[in-house]
Amino acid sequence: MSSSFGTLFKVSTFGESHCVGVGAIVDGVPPRMELTAADIQVQLDRRRPGQNKLGTDRNEADQVSILSGVEFEKTLGSPIGLLVANKNQRPGDYGEMSNIPRPSHADYTYRAKYGTHASSGGGRASARETIARVAAGAVAEKFLLTEYGIEIVSWVSSVGNIDAAPLDMDIINRVQVDGNDVRCPDLAAAELMTAEIMAARADKDSIGGVLSCVCRNVPAGWGEPAFDRLEALMAHAMLSLPASKGFEIGSGFAGARQRGSQHNDPYVWKDGRMGTTTNRSGGVQGGISNGEPICFRVAFKPPATIGQEQQTVDYSGAPVTLAAKGRHDPCVVSRAVPIVETMAALVLADLALIQRMR
Amino acid sequence: MSSSFGTLFKVSTFGESHCVGVGAIVDGVPPRMELTAADIQVQLDRRRPGQNKLGTDRNEADQVSILSGVEFEKTLGSPIGLLVANKNQRPGDYGEMSNIPRPSHADYTYRAKYGTHASSGGGRASARETIARVAAGAVAEKFLLTEYGIEIVSWVSSVGNIDAAPLDMDIINRVQVDGNDVRCPDLAAAELMTAEIMAARADKDSIGGVLSCVCRNVPAGWGEPAFDRLEALMAHAMLSLPASKGFEIGSGFAGARQRGSQHNDPYVWKDGRMGTTTNRSGGVQGGISNGEPICFRVAFKPPATIGQEQQTVDYSGAPVTLAAKGRHDPCVVSRAVPIVETMAALVLADLALIQRMR
Amino acid sequence: MSSSFGTLFKVSTFGESHCVGVGAIVDGVPPRMELTAADIQVQLDRRRPGQNKLGTDRNEADQVSILSGVEFEKTLGSPIGLLVANKNQRPGDYGEMSNIPRPSHADYTYRAKYGTHASSGGGRASARETIARVAAGAVAEKFLLTEYGIEIVSWVSSVGNIDAAPLDMDIINRVQVDGNDVRCPDLAAAELMTAEIMAARADKDSIGGVLSCVCRNVPAGWGEPAFDRLEALMAHAMLSLPASKGFEIGSGFAGARQRGSQHNDPYVWKDGRMGTTTNRSGGVQGGISNGEPICFRVAFKPPATIGQEQQTVDYSGAPVTLAAKGRHDPCVVSRAVPIVETMAALVLADLALIQRMR
Amino acid sequence: MSSSFGTLFKVSTFGESHCVGVGAIVDGVPPRMELTAADIQVQLDRRRPGQNKLGTDRNEADQVSILSGVEFEKTLGSPIGLLVANKNQRPGDYGEMSNIPRPSHADYTYRAKYGTHASSGGGRASARETIARVAAGAVAEKFLLTEYGIEIVSWVSSVGNIDAAPLDMDIINRVQVDGNDVRCPDLAAAELMTAEIMAARADKDSIGGVLSCVCRNVPAGWGEPAFDRLEALMAHAMLSLPASKGFEIGSGFAGARQRGSQHNDPYVWKDGRMGTTTNRSGGVQGGISNGEPICFRVAFKPPATIGQEQQTVDYSGAPVTLAAKGRHDPCVVSRAVPIVETMAALVLADLALIQRMR
Repeated sequence: MSSSFGTLFKVSTFGESHCVGVGAIVDGVPPRMELTAADIQVQLDRRRPGQNKLGTDRNEADQVSILSGVEFEKTLGSPIGLLVANKNQRPGDYGEMSNIPRPSHADYTYRAKYGTHASSGGGRASARETIARVAAGAVAEKFLLTEYGIEIVSWVSSVGNIDAAPLDMDIINRVQVDGNDVRCPDLAAAELMTAEIMAARADKDSIGGVLSCVCRNVPAGWGEPAFDRLEALMAHAMLSLPASKGFEIGSGFAGARQRGSQHNDPYVWKDGRMGTTTNRSGGVQGGISNGEPICFRVAFKPPATIGQEQQTVDYSGAPVTLAAKGRHDPCVVSRAVPIVETMAALVLADLALIQRMR
Repeated sequence: MSSSFGTLFKVSTFGESHCVGVGAIVDGVPPRMELTAADIQVQLDRRRPGQNKLGTDRNEADQVSILSGVEFEKTLGSPIGLLVANKNQRPGDYGEMSNIPRPSHADYTYRAKYGTHASSGGGRASARETIARVAAGAVAEKFLLTEYGIEIVSWVSSVGNIDAAPLDMDIINRVQVDGNDVRCPDLAAAELMTAEIMAARADKDSIGGVLSCVCRNVPAGWGEPAFDRLEALMAHAMLSLPASKGFEIGSGFAGARQRGSQHNDPYVWKDGRMGTTTNRSGGVQGGISNGEPICFRVAFKPPATIGQEQQTVDYSGAPVTLAAKGRHDPCVVSRAVPIVETMAALVLADLALIQRMR
Repeated sequence: MSSSFGTLFKVSTFGESHCVGVGAIVDGVPPRMELTAADIQVQLDRRRPGQNKLGTDRNEADQVSILSGVEFEKTLGSPIGLLVANKNQRPGDYGEMSNIPRPSHADYTYRAKYGTHASSGGGRASARETIARVAAGAVAEKFLLTEYGIEIVSWVSSVGNIDAAPLDMDIINRVQVDGNDVRCPDLAAAELMTAEIMAARADKDSIGGVLSCVCRNVPAGWGEPAFDRLEALMAHAMLSLPASKGFEIGSGFAGARQRGSQHNDPYVWKDGRMGTTTNRSGGVQGGISNGEPICFRVAFKPPATIGQEQQTVDYSGAPVTLAAKGRHDPCVVSRAVPIVETMAALVLADLALIQRMR
Repeated sequence: MSSSFGTLFKVSTFGESHCVGVGAIVDGVPPRMELTAADIQVQLDRRRPGQNKLGTDRNEADQVSILSGVEFEKTLGSPIGLLVANKNQRPGDYGEMSNIPRPSHADYTYRAKYGTHASSGGGRASARETIARVAAGAVAEKFLLTEYGIEIVSWVSSVGNIDAAPLDMDIINRVQVDGNDVRCPDLAAAELMTAEIMAARADKDSIGGVLSCVCRNVPAGWGEPAFDRLEALMAHAMLSLPASKGFEIGSGFAGARQRGSQHNDPYVWKDGRMGTTTNRSGGVQGGISNGEPICFRVAFKPPATIGQEQQTVDYSGAPVTLAAKGRHDPCVVSRAVPIVETMAALVLADLALIQRMR
């Protein structure tokens, strides 16, 4: 259950921090689609830590291998096996920390769930687990772009209390997003965000943030009524990411403060189809896409592992003081950009295939 | 796909506005549990419209029948069939409106999806679809209370710009919630919310709002790593509700503005178990419950159907002016309280059964 | 789990012997398909007991109601709710028998599984459970016939030691099958089978038999590799029927005695497509349909409930003599004909929708 | 869909003939269970071709690597990734054969399904696909043995027209089965079977056969009513194997020739529990295990690829004569023994976990 996502475009993943590797099986990819490892590697490279001064200095290569399902650079229709080797494969007891759960980390809950724990503490809660999602989701992105011209772009819209100005959802692209380390296309805000992150790092602290995402060219009619509404599946996908705490589509929580006369999106005739003049619906009505851009935001809490001393207790209940050693990412949102994009792609690819049955 | 939810505690639903009835099959309910129609009816009654001056004056009885799976007031372990008859079963063309999609309603997207539409326009997007969920979820509530002592309480925490004061998550109960029509236990706020709703009605307009929910006594260890984290399933459940636009757990979007040193929940020893002094995690760490109350919030947009005139176009692209006839709920959040509670129960009941396999 | 079947064309069922009714939700039926209760009733009528001298004299009406998903005799694309009321709704302890499991019946295993039992003993093992399958499968048949011209015909090919002569798979139809009570189109064999069944009845005994089934006009390409081969899903469907003990496709067990040179089906060019001169493959190669008729057989054991005295023990281990009262079907295969056909339809309808995604 | 099996104990597989490797993800394995690659390798070794004079002389190493989910030789509760490298990774057009479908092979149906084909022709229909199943199923076997003492033993009970004598289901074990190359514990029959296979090989032909299997110590109560009866899932598993044509449980097709008075299994008191004196039910009643050994048989057709000349047509319909080059297994049943055992283990492990929820 826990390690599969999707009904027809279906991904199953495996892997934790110190095992041989992390990987995925992507089942349901239509045959005869062009696909190479390079299509996947580009998003893995964007996810990789240690790329700039904002992150940690670990330099993980994260090279993907396509194990099956592709021949002569074309998909066969059979399941695509993907593997990314772990560089650090030595499972090692994490020493004194093994008896002290890190506050707001998954150490304790994994132990409560399984009665054991991986040497990394939180097992599948490790950030490395997202590598498999990004690899699988990159295949979904290729499918959506090839078959429907769908473009998915995510960016950092806030770090701490620094908010980016609103962007034009119709034109924002990944080149603009990758124009700076923090991945915020509002350059003034990006500078302030960078300062915020550097300040948190200097304080041996961490800081949260919010990602925005737009999916363009999604045809009207995708999404299933009742339980599998498009926004329900998207929320499921996003809240399954480590450190995520919230999801909103279109007007979101702000829309809950409005009146219907303000909030409703009037219909107009656009390029020979029904369209709306505003998009407070976020591209979805009644759980089904309406042809407008699908827009949503995801909140990420500050990373739990910080260098500052924290008061906590060990598993016997004895009070202890804990300070994480080593270097840790003070902020994860910039690296989360390709993760949010590829998870969104997994949702849309599944809905695309489901809609084909009608 | 679209009409089923859950892996082991699994509900499938059917029904739209003008058909014979709406209902559900609840599969996976353990045997030998006490269950009567009255256990279910109580939440259906709380969901029913026309109960007070804030809602519409339709008075729908919504009586549930248990069709199978229960004998001598005990569950058999077999699937439980549930049926609620519709009072208005005449499918009738909705006249001039059939060619004019209501702004921000599901009329257009259903037509785009299916190439046809139910006489009610949005088909399964109808509010009556939620009856089946409430009935099924009431069974889940009974299971969770009986087997684990789990209590689930939801209430209205904002209407438009009126916000309720924070509540004590450990003691809030349904008697307090039902103490006023708007279902907000902060009485001062409730009065202002009522005025806000009445004002929207007077203006032939509608207004949005936010629901809060707490689930108490959930054991540590529930929730699956990776894709089926507890908050991911909960977000899926909540964003599948009509008119919902956002979900946040624990600190949510506000947490994204904090630093780790502020946000982390320190561990303490509580009643012979690990606990935390604060609960910004919302009862979940790494996607798995930690034994603290599970706290989340759901944003609902203002209802799309309003009596005011709106400019829109028909399916041929011709501009038209639309004003809904009849009486419509100006605000749905008060009636959404039992819907949020029962959907939360479906998520937790499924995770409870899944955890039993370990 | 146990009460759902199919991935895209998905049926969930409920109901046991003495509850209010049995029914199904059929999800995934494409929109805009013509459908009325009469389309479904025809197969329910063929399944009904008490139609002739070979069966019991219970006369159950088994009228189906369409609860949802259809308006103006066309499907909406939403889930179709189906209900058939039970005439005998009094759950009553089955007296002395409640402590004595009937040999080869589900009484004991249900009790072992659930720690309780329905008043009918075997709960969902009741023959009435198949009503919901037939109703749902009749919808699948309508879909397959309308969209693909697929015809499914089953008949009785053996009763006890009486075997029917082989039939022409290309022309056998339901009118021929229903030409006699035993539903065997080989009239000479049918007469002997009738005598065999009457003899078993006279002896207060029962008798087993075998059903054959052919599915014509299935396009090449249906069926999924690996776990969901067409014959695997078909075997799953057939072995889920009460009293079934075996399944074979094409040459089946006899094929295991042959050499490859005898068994291989040579290809020829037929009506502008690849075809085979023989059909020992049963219409399936590598788990995928090849365009030839899909042919399989299902073995049913003799009904467990017989009027003769049997030595057994009660749940305390004390030896007892048991003889069933009332009248019981001495042979179930004739009534199983529409059940086998509709279950086959459920398998094929699901594979049809899955293939559309490619 | 096609590449996953199971609900809670869930396996997903990937890989075809000439790709990098074949493998599986096994999700749902309970934590803290001892597991090493050696536990898995033993069944892979039994499956491997080229071990004796009866098979081909390919010597494939088929070494399994555990990629994740295990640390310090104990399961973590996270998904277990398994990989077996392919020795022959050169995807190469299979030359003239690419335009000529082999009779009774999957070449044509895969092409009809996908509009393309793997260089090996039938893609996932390759025998190498079963490696992933055996690896995953070996994990299930370890779980069943450790937690429940369940033993699963399969053997060859017929080759062509040579039938083994019935065995004692209570004592047959793998040492006896592996006592000869053909894997038939009836030594006289084994000798005749060997001769039969050698004769087929000498004639550049192939021969079919039947496997029997017994699962001992399965507790009463496993298996789900209605669609997921134990025998339905077992039939699904077995008919998903390449070249399988039939499945029967207990009395099977022979039971369909009997009367109820002959067929019913009388209950007796056995070692403090309900038991039966005979086992025509095959250990299952009403789809649920009754505590007796689960016994079933699987028919395999003769391999389609033979060295003899065969008349067929190419994809343009032109008649051609085809004779396979190279050496091919004349009979697959001996190598299918571990495949049948491990697939049975996957079914039972899933039902074991599902039953835990009650």
